[in-house]
Amino acid sequence: MRAARLHEFTDDMSEALSIDEIDRPEITRSDEVLVEIEGAGWCQTDNHIIEGMWQQYAPTELPQTLGHENAGTVAEVGPEVTVVEEGDQVICHPVMTCGTCRACRLGDDMYCDELAFPGLTTDGGFAEYLLTNERAVIPLEGVDPVEIAPHADAGITAYHAAKKAVAELVPGDYAVLVGIGGLGHIGLQAVDAMSAAQTIAVDVKDEALSLAERLGADHTVNSADEDVVEAVDAITDGVGARQTLDFVGSDGTTEMGPDLLAAGGDHHVVGYGGHIHEPTQTLVDGEMSFRGTLVGEYTELQELVALVEQGEIHLETSEYDLSEINAVAERLEDREIEGRAVIKP
Amino acid sequence: MRAARLHEFTDDMSEALSIDEIDRPEITRSDEVLVEIEGAGWCQTDNHIIEGMWQQYAPTELPQTLGHENAGTVAEVGPEVTVVEEGDQVICHPVMTCGTCRACRLGDDMYCDELAFPGLTTDGGFAEYLLTNERAVIPLEGVDPVEIAPHADAGITAYHAAKKAVAELVPGDYAVLVGIGGLGHIGLQAVDAMSAAQTIAVDVKDEALSLAERLGADHTVNSADEDVVEAVDAITDGVGARQTLDFVGSDGTTEMGPDLLAAGGDHHVVGYGGHIHEPTQTLVDGEMSFRGTLVGEYTELQELVALVEQGEIHLETSEYDLSEINAVAERLEDREIEGRAVIKP
Amino acid sequence: MRAARLHEFTDDMSEALSIDEIDRPEITRSDEVLVEIEGAGWCQTDNHIIEGMWQQYAPTELPQTLGHENAGTVAEVGPEVTVVEEGDQVICHPVMTCGTCRACRLGDDMYCDELAFPGLTTDGGFAEYLLTNERAVIPLEGVDPVEIAPHADAGITAYHAAKKAVAELVPGDYAVLVGIGGLGHIGLQAVDAMSAAQTIAVDVKDEALSLAERLGADHTVNSADEDVVEAVDAITDGVGARQTLDFVGSDGTTEMGPDLLAAGGDHHVVGYGGHIHEPTQTLVDGEMSFRGTLVGEYTELQELVALVEQGEIHLETSEYDLSEINAVAERLEDREIEGRAVIKP
Amino acid sequence: MRAARLHEFTDDMSEALSIDEIDRPEITRSDEVLVEIEGAGWCQTDNHIIEGMWQQYAPTELPQTLGHENAGTVAEVGPEVTVVEEGDQVICHPVMTCGTCRACRLGDDMYCDELAFPGLTTDGGFAEYLLTNERAVIPLEGVDPVEIAPHADAGITAYHAAKKAVAELVPGDYAVLVGIGGLGHIGLQAVDAMSAAQTIAVDVKDEALSLAERLGADHTVNSADEDVVEAVDAITDGVGARQTLDFVGSDGTTEMGPDLLAAGGDHHVVGYGGHIHEPTQTLVDGEMSFRGTLVGEYTELQELVALVEQGEIHLETSEYDLSEINAVAERLEDREIEGRAVIKP
Repeated sequence: MRAARLHEFTDDMSEALSIDEIDRPEITRSDEVLVEIEGAGWCQTDNHIIEGMWQQYAPTELPQTLGHENAGTVAEVGPEVTVVEEGDQVICHPVMTCGTCRACRLGDDMYCDELAFPGLTTDGGFAEYLLTNERAVIPLEGVDPVEIAPHADAGITAYHAAKKAVAELVPGDYAVLVGIGGLGHIGLQAVDAMSAAQTIAVDVKDEALSLAERLGADHTVNSADEDVVEAVDAITDGVGARQTLDFVGSDGTTEMGPDLLAAGGDHHVVGYGGHIHEPTQTLVDGEMSFRGTLVGEYTELQELVALVEQGEIHLETSEYDLSEINAVAERLEDREIEGRAVIKP
Repeated sequence: MRAARLHEFTDDMSEALSIDEIDRPEITRSDEVLVEIEGAGWCQTDNHIIEGMWQQYAPTELPQTLGHENAGTVAEVGPEVTVVEEGDQVICHPVMTCGTCRACRLGDDMYCDELAFPGLTTDGGFAEYLLTNERAVIPLEGVDPVEIAPHADAGITAYHAAKKAVAELVPGDYAVLVGIGGLGHIGLQAVDAMSAAQTIAVDVKDEALSLAERLGADHTVNSADEDVVEAVDAITDGVGARQTLDFVGSDGTTEMGPDLLAAGGDHHVVGYGGHIHEPTQTLVDGEMSFRGTLVGEYTELQELVALVEQGEIHLETSEYDLSEINAVAERLEDREIEGRAVIKP
Repeated sequence: MRAARLHEFTDDMSEALSIDEIDRPEITRSDEVLVEIEGAGWCQTDNHIIEGMWQQYAPTELPQTLGHENAGTVAEVGPEVTVVEEGDQVICHPVMTCGTCRACRLGDDMYCDELAFPGLTTDGGFAEYLLTNERAVIPLEGVDPVEIAPHADAGITAYHAAKKAVAELVPGDYAVLVGIGGLGHIGLQAVDAMSAAQTIAVDVKDEALSLAERLGADHTVNSADEDVVEAVDAITDGVGARQTLDFVGSDGTTEMGPDLLAAGGDHHVVGYGGHIHEPTQTLVDGEMSFRGTLVGEYTELQELVALVEQGEIHLETSEYDLSEINAVAERLEDREIEGRAVIKP
Repeated sequence: MRAARLHEFTDDMSEALSIDEIDRPEITRSDEVLVEIEGAGWCQTDNHIIEGMWQQYAPTELPQTLGHENAGTVAEVGPEVTVVEEGDQVICHPVMTCGTCRACRLGDDMYCDELAFPGLTTDGGFAEYLLTNERAVIPLEGVDPVEIAPHADAGITAYHAAKKAVAELVPGDYAVLVGIGGLGHIGLQAVDAMSAAQTIAVDVKDEALSLAERLGADHTVNSADEDVVEAVDAITDGVGARQTLDFVGSDGTTEMGPDLLAAGGDHHVVGYGGHIHEPTQTLVDGEMSFRGTLVGEYTELQELVALVEQGEIHLETSEYDLSEINAVAERLEDREIEGRAVIKP
């Protein structure tokens, strides 16, 4: 089968992956599931993997097929699988979990002791077939796999962060969302659907802010033109935001973090790439937190699929053929992709 | 009356405060309370105020009487006060709150819109009398004001942080406590009283670790001799701690933070003075948080007093006369004070 | 001034209250506020008070002016009041609290040790003027007091219950709302605004269900025509609801409670008048709870006012003159009032 | 193998079960585990099953081997089992779960769609061997299976309820524990280990109260001699308890429930057999809840085993041979067993 594979780490996205012909994976365990991929989303994390930025956290053995936002049709199942059967359309939670470690038992899928992450630690979905397991697949009803694929990581990550923020938000509160791209435009809709808080969308691009407005943002701030702290202070009448969802995670976005927040507020670090540099006294003085957020649980992907099926989340996607994959990598690096790119093998 | 006052910011603790003769404060509002001070704890924050480190957060007008860990006897009350009467022994919550802003209504005393902080923004308790209000005093039953005074800030701050940590701890979990000084030795006992988690006490001094053992620490690590990350890894069988209470807040203690924690863990920043420098990717990868923590609520001081009355918290104190106050400032700066110093005016 | 007063308990609503001429109340404390009433909502609880049903819980001394859903204009303030000034339009939280007991300090206004409940334990708002205090008033901005008055109790009670339910609801879950009257139609909108759960409205009257549909209910069930348990089972695909908000509280509505719920669900008892009769084994088998719910906090009324100002809650009201008050009492008893009746003194 | 089996429902405990010779169960799935039973606790629920009281909730097909508190040694494992291997000593969580339904994914083991309950819906552990699965077994380290077996249901049920109560308790609060028998004496120790609340133990027998005192109860009340409501009122200085754990669940214990509690308190229904009869107005007036509680999760059994290994929970047991099983049934019915009886096959 054809698969887009990483052979060596590089900063040159124009020749990041090569399209190889490799063997189709085979089922060897009772709970495994083979999925014929219909759509696989391209993620900023793919760029980071190609650059080698994940090597110190979760080493990748090369060559490897990337792709962790996968959806398609079940082609074959292991002998004890009951959740799906051949022919079912599915979206794949990004990781394969054991189901027996304490983390799995608590529902904390991302902390699984035996976690395998296709597209990062095992072969992923930029290929004709993906080998995953029963605990990773969610059957779809009346939703096109190609259109929903990016929810497998971009969606669930944004939803997971939004859910944590929403737990702290009450009517009258404000939430700031920094970066209205692939994740941010989903996070915005999730906050809107699940709370009555007012939203303030922040981005450097007017197109992103126009999208935010169409998706229901109550206020927008262009951080290239305006001082975000002053703007948020004015919008919130000097109170500050209760929660910030930072889908960028740069030095600049975390630096303004404490000044955006009311006392006791949280700055959720969803995007990454930069650093936090902050006096501990600042965290103490405002009793604020920097809270990391990592993908999301299988059950949260179920909840997100429910939102999609209810029509509460609109996903901006554009489709590409597997052969165009390096062009997609380059365009994302140059921030030229609105919403999310989906690769069709 | 006599009062120890700050006239200018300085790094020289030997002449930090001067003992002045000033007017005794007078009650002008219906809810005010005048307390004759019997004991007032000296806090690391007093050193930080003297150095001018709080000027950018909460400006102090000079000259000012310091002292925010106050306990004594009610000398006079405003005409509508019902919580206490003349002659009652009380401990004073460190701030005076309005009781009508939204923060007060939610019980978040430290976020009060009209907050006054004696010893920081108004005259404090290193004096014969302190002017405070009804919402700041807690009557004592059978507890000596001199012995309990440091709980007004050191105690409540440690308790507040411990309570946040305990909410995340279950039997089988580990909590790391960094810095077993004035706050840390209280935090350790609070975690022990309110959870069944195992505690790991970390300090650079063997005396502090001996104190920790006497107070019930399950494990101790001397960070001057041992690699703390390796030690915690060994103690927790590779799992890591669920919660860290950092009573130091230096560059070094926050740097090791992420490596001490199991996935999803929290590093509570209680002490301050240093900085956090961390890649955002580290917070994402382990879904960890740096959570600031600021003093505690009036109701938490009630809960702490209940613990003291039940005999569950032992406070290490040494007593000094008001005239010795600069010597105390110097000795704390040089880390020569075990537990907490209490000034008797 | 004129006031509608209860002189003796009775089941005859046609002569429940008499319009008396009494003295206008006077301010005697520093925090008191005198409000000229513009609108006061009539509540099912008023009928229950008239029948003497509250005597064993919170005895009323007769004669007494009823009316606990009050809004109007500040006529006079005590000397230390800062939250409002003469001329401000306000809605009144239904109880006056002390602000210093532990319950008040925790934000649990309804548990105040010194609670006074105008219209139940002191004179209420079916009168030209109401004496209340600073901690009970919320300034209004651009909202007509007459239109918002019923939120002071019906609204806040429905909101309080909805907020507890919403904390347990995620996308994909179902919430059942039983009784779409004065409280229920507000609770429905609150659940809708603050969660992405699907709502199932249940009532005996088609008019109420039509209102529910207009206000956004996802499903409706007429309990006079259909078996509610079967209907909910069908709508939820056999899963059951996660939360039930029971605005009726009769023998019949609590009896069907356990059968409506998925395992671990809650039946919130908001309305009252009937009994719960249930084997303890039923609560154990489904791990379900019957959770009482009592009015709501001052901060919740702030949140509700924010929802109203944002246009997320529509209140059905009809207006009556003070002289028509007994006719209103009768019509509510006969379930002939849609939404909420507001008395204008 | 030998097994104690129920052939028909009866109220006569003296001939409830018969010792039959049946086939040893065989492993047919990849995740199954065969355990050689060393100890199996006898539970009040066994009596209830024998009486047919569970038929309307979870029908039992007869004949069936009872026994749901099981511990022993792994005799054989399915081909994909990794959690344990032959020869490991284990305690068995009382139910076998699928690991893939939404409830399992959330960690809510007791709500599993495919739940099998050995001793209730499939053959249990009053036998030489028990067939269970990988998701039900917890390896033991240095703990005797016979001594720990009752924790598999009595322990976990008491712990689960205690954990829910502890989440609401702060220092200064009181918890009432009604019924210091097999479950209650564990619940008491769990509350004590995990909170700093004061405990009030209630029972009709002085022996049970003596046990409670030895295990750390702060106060005891003999409900045969004293009015419990008055006693709790006196102990709590009129405030009432924040939480009640009702290990009896009779008409009498639920009737006194609301009067024991402070406003906002919870009455946890753990034991069952009686009914709740209560006006809905009582739940509203005190904003109290009756909260059912059903066994506990696998992860909670891990936490309980950690408490046992730390020496924080002492279990009162007496041992019996399989042949004595009907005598045990009779003695429990007559309340003649202190702590917990363990059957050794």
